[in-house]
Amino acid sequence: MNFNPGPAALPLPVLERARDELIDFAGTGMSIMEHSHRGAAYEGVHNEAISLLRQLMGIPDGYEVLFLQGGASQQFAQVPMNLLSEGRSADYVLTGHWGERALADAEAAAALGGGGVRVAASTASGAGKSATFTRVLRAGEINADTHAAYLHVTSNETIHGVQFTEFPDPGGVPLVCDMSSDVLSRRVDVSRFAMIYAGAQKNIGPSGVVVIVARKELVEAGRKDIPAIFQYRTYAANNSLYNTPPTFAIYLVRGVLQWVKESGGLEQVERWNREKADLIYGAIDRHAQVYNCPVERDSRSWMNVVFRLPSPEQESRFVKEAEQQGMIGLKGHRSVGGIRVSLYNAVPVEWARTLAGFMDDFARRAG
Amino acid sequence: MNFNPGPAALPLPVLERARDELIDFAGTGMSIMEHSHRGAAYEGVHNEAISLLRQLMGIPDGYEVLFLQGGASQQFAQVPMNLLSEGRSADYVLTGHWGERALADAEAAAALGGGGVRVAASTASGAGKSATFTRVLRAGEINADTHAAYLHVTSNETIHGVQFTEFPDPGGVPLVCDMSSDVLSRRVDVSRFAMIYAGAQKNIGPSGVVVIVARKELVEAGRKDIPAIFQYRTYAANNSLYNTPPTFAIYLVRGVLQWVKESGGLEQVERWNREKADLIYGAIDRHAQVYNCPVERDSRSWMNVVFRLPSPEQESRFVKEAEQQGMIGLKGHRSVGGIRVSLYNAVPVEWARTLAGFMDDFARRAG
Repeated sequence: MNFNPGPAALPLPVLERARDELIDFAGTGMSIMEHSHRGAAYEGVHNEAISLLRQLMGIPDGYEVLFLQGGASQQFAQVPMNLLSEGRSADYVLTGHWGERALADAEAAAALGGGGVRVAASTASGAGKSATFTRVLRAGEINADTHAAYLHVTSNETIHGVQFTEFPDPGGVPLVCDMSSDVLSRRVDVSRFAMIYAGAQKNIGPSGVVVIVARKELVEAGRKDIPAIFQYRTYAANNSLYNTPPTFAIYLVRGVLQWVKESGGLEQVERWNREKADLIYGAIDRHAQVYNCPVERDSRSWMNVVFRLPSPEQESRFVKEAEQQGMIGLKGHRSVGGIRVSLYNAVPVEWARTLAGFMDDFARRAG
Repeated sequence: MNFNPGPAALPLPVLERARDELIDFAGTGMSIMEHSHRGAAYEGVHNEAISLLRQLMGIPDGYEVLFLQGGASQQFAQVPMNLLSEGRSADYVLTGHWGERALADAEAAAALGGGGVRVAASTASGAGKSATFTRVLRAGEINADTHAAYLHVTSNETIHGVQFTEFPDPGGVPLVCDMSSDVLSRRVDVSRFAMIYAGAQKNIGPSGVVVIVARKELVEAGRKDIPAIFQYRTYAANNSLYNTPPTFAIYLVRGVLQWVKESGGLEQVERWNREKADLIYGAIDRHAQVYNCPVERDSRSWMNVVFRLPSPEQESRFVKEAEQQGMIGLKGHRSVGGIRVSLYNAVPVEWARTLAGFMDDFARRAG
């Protein structure tokens, strides 16, 4: 039972199929990895992945779907490189570590291009190294620049366990969202976003590929004076085949999307994810004397449930005993400590039920 | 028999092993793709890949070995972003299409950072769209800037079939080499280069990972005012684990490197590659009335053998008949036409022998 924060569990049927056709893809006598990215076999896979993502997320026609490399971390820089022209400024909303990282790289990228960035809102409590995040925004907390090139939010914060349910209203400013850790985990109204980007390794596939969903106008309006390889328009104009894409990673993305579709689409996935989160938060709330989730109720993440035990020693014991019962990946991020349960799409409800049972048992013994 | 120009054939034992352990890596009950990039299982793979590359290529201690994403195409921009500080200039040697591409992206990247690029030598014959390349440099042809930040060369040109045997002497200027299409295909004196970069999908693994071998001083001297994700020092300081690397691609790189080692190292691989190239060029030269290789003898690539037949119709027939006999990937690049035979490491000598036999037969029937 793999509760890793990412790279994370992948659906078993997807891995089984990948295994079965690893050496001979669709009777071609070659692995999909050995096919040219410009050949019919791979192009079929590539285009099916794009069209499945469009279907499942309900992506409107006016949006591009692109595959890039470099992880969400590269997007932290690439978004401002494309969208911040000279003299323009972008707004950032900080609700955890990843928003801070996005801001830091945006600052460097903006400085190169003659633009700037500012913090439009932050829910940090405390300052400096000991700052922590326990909630998303409350209404009216954004001090937005109505002339900003874009407003950037992080949909789900994997380290702090904070997730948006209602996204902030950016007014007329394009909303750009890092959805790496909760994309495809629930239904989302894509039309509210100017751009969504997501590293694949939580809910969509293996590491090594980033999915971008962006309004065509945004892509077209991007800077033209940066190297072609960093321009979103280059990917849009070439169906993400400008240079060799990470073909095997995209093949696995297609597999995961097929699995989501066969499972009943995002409605069913959302139901499962709600159920898994309810199981773990339920166990936390039942044993408040042992488990403490620092995140405010309306901001609790379905994807990464974080909680503390009364002492680091008990936390170590919790992780160790869970591991003995076959549950791994539960140690909190080194920067915050505690326990973290990652419940991405490929984690079955049954695993969450088993973990909740273990939590009940552990609490009774500890209490 | 896969003669694709890349993504290309991978060694069968590597694919077989990947298949056998795809769902359960080393008895962990999980795919290597599902392991954390910070866990012991993956780190063992990652570090073994680095150490095998060091052994096989004889990389001196003063060099970093890094894994990045984005393909060689991203390096076209990332090299000047890192190495060209304001007011500095870099020199480019052009011996084919990929050198031209590297130059074009370097121009855009240099302009952003206040640096410049220039052509130190080009073997193009003809001008504009109809320019072609049929050889590497002759001694004395470089008009080098002794103050250049670096001199960039493309070791092997996959479209024009032109390959360096003797690399140019850059004087005291750091030599930076795009070795994407012939890395690991022969012994090379790494100490002559300040930096080597290579997309994996020809000789090292699948697409989605780039290998960089660079002098530590070069990495340390790189610009610090670009976003951290683009700085080579970020990868060096974090053993290429700053953000999530393409773990499965690196796992396959390890497999390919193990296979090279078990096969007898670069000495044996070089012997095979020489033999394969001799087989195909031998067939070309035996039937000069049918096959014409435009590349000068001392510049002929071992990796990509290009040749023409007397008419496009005969070329189509050649490709079609070869395909009927199980040989694929032989069509020349759309920009130059003709035939291209890619003979990367994983192509066995036997396939080259079969193709040479087919070429003899085809020539007799055509002649």
